[in-house]
Amino acid sequence: MSVERTLHHFPLDPASRQVRLALGEKRLPFAETHVRWWEQPDDFIALNPSGVPPVLVEETSKGRLAVCETRAILEHIEEQNPEPPLLGRDPAERAEARRLLQWFDRKFDAEVSAFLLHEKMEKRLLGYGAPDLANLRQGREALRHHLRYIEHLLAERDWLAGRRISLADMAAAAHISVIDYFGDVPWNDVPVARTWYMKIKSRPCFRPLLVDRWPGMAPAPHYHDLDF
Amino acid sequence: MSVERTLHHFPLDPASRQVRLALGEKRLPFAETHVRWWEQPDDFIALNPSGVPPVLVEETSKGRLAVCETRAILEHIEEQNPEPPLLGRDPAERAEARRLLQWFDRKFDAEVSAFLLHEKMEKRLLGYGAPDLANLRQGREALRHHLRYIEHLLAERDWLAGRRISLADMAAAAHISVIDYFGDVPWNDVPVARTWYMKIKSRPCFRPLLVDRWPGMAPAPHYHDLDF
Repeated sequence: MSVERTLHHFPLDPASRQVRLALGEKRLPFAETHVRWWEQPDDFIALNPSGVPPVLVEETSKGRLAVCETRAILEHIEEQNPEPPLLGRDPAERAEARRLLQWFDRKFDAEVSAFLLHEKMEKRLLGYGAPDLANLRQGREALRHHLRYIEHLLAERDWLAGRRISLADMAAAAHISVIDYFGDVPWNDVPVARTWYMKIKSRPCFRPLLVDRWPGMAPAPHYHDLDF
Repeated sequence: MSVERTLHHFPLDPASRQVRLALGEKRLPFAETHVRWWEQPDDFIALNPSGVPPVLVEETSKGRLAVCETRAILEHIEEQNPEPPLLGRDPAERAEARRLLQWFDRKFDAEVSAFLLHEKMEKRLLGYGAPDLANLRQGREALRHHLRYIEHLLAERDWLAGRRISLADMAAAAHISVIDYFGDVPWNDVPVARTWYMKIKSRPCFRPLLVDRWPGMAPAPHYHDLDF
């Protein structure tokens, strides 16, 4: 059955980026609409009452399905398009990939993105003024802990959840890539994490993310560079 | 294959309660260990590096699997024990149940529990002093919005995600039940939500939650009452 997909997303939103990477890795084509979520557009709220991107709309001969909220979208994509598997094949692999998904979506988000992206991106989008330096410091310090945790995982693994690339890598890379857009990742201090990020950054699914730009917010000079 | 389950949880934690309800609804027996997560016990951190309950440990003849983080546990239980289905059977039902799971775990948690449970429970556990009245007011106001959203959904549905009970009901009831323990749900103002809660509160899976008590924190008088 042919499926026409449209992803409603915001280019610099880590959650949206996870879905773009997953769709890209599965080689599933999709149309795109950019959502200015901070303006709470009526048509988007009608699609997702929580007002948060991304939303994946699928149209088939049977009808139209709007899948809202990141985890719902990722699980849906995986169930409907099992190959290549992005959650692993056995229960232990799946549990580990999902554990790390929640790690990045809750812990990393609360400890790193809530500070760095709030100060550098959301305040600009919302017109809230200059970044607070204490918050930036706190976010950068937490980022170092998370990068060290990534290096700890990679000491015994090829990818974050095990031997194969998974949604855990996509979640981590999606979050980190937005921080990297703003130039805040201390790559020189974390060579193992850097090698992992170079690997995922070089995959075809990542290419669309590297050309993302948003008016008034220029990326760090190395942002699109595969040999950063 | 016989599975021996142990759930590491905290009785008044909404995330832990979701898993207890799901295991109960599937009639899967499990042993319990209470986690004093706020003390960050070493043995629990070794089990789940994020330090957050619940963790489900399964032992079989093949070995031992520790599944960490709520969503990972819920999806694991569903995959390993598909009957009765708690995520619905078709993609649209599953998308809707998962959308609402994320609604309660992120939006309700951030807007309601982060205020009410922080002030009434976490501050006591952590020895942080008396509740802040402005925060309580803000949490109660947000709770009213969420209860109205539940009534909006139930205007056309038997259960939150559709015709059958699902993990969405368990997530909502788990969150609300802890607020109810502290007596903060304005049941008289939301008769439709109240009827829904009476239905789920009467199910066998709910019974263990109604006898939960934590030292120094007595439940509201109606908490265990099925005709509240």
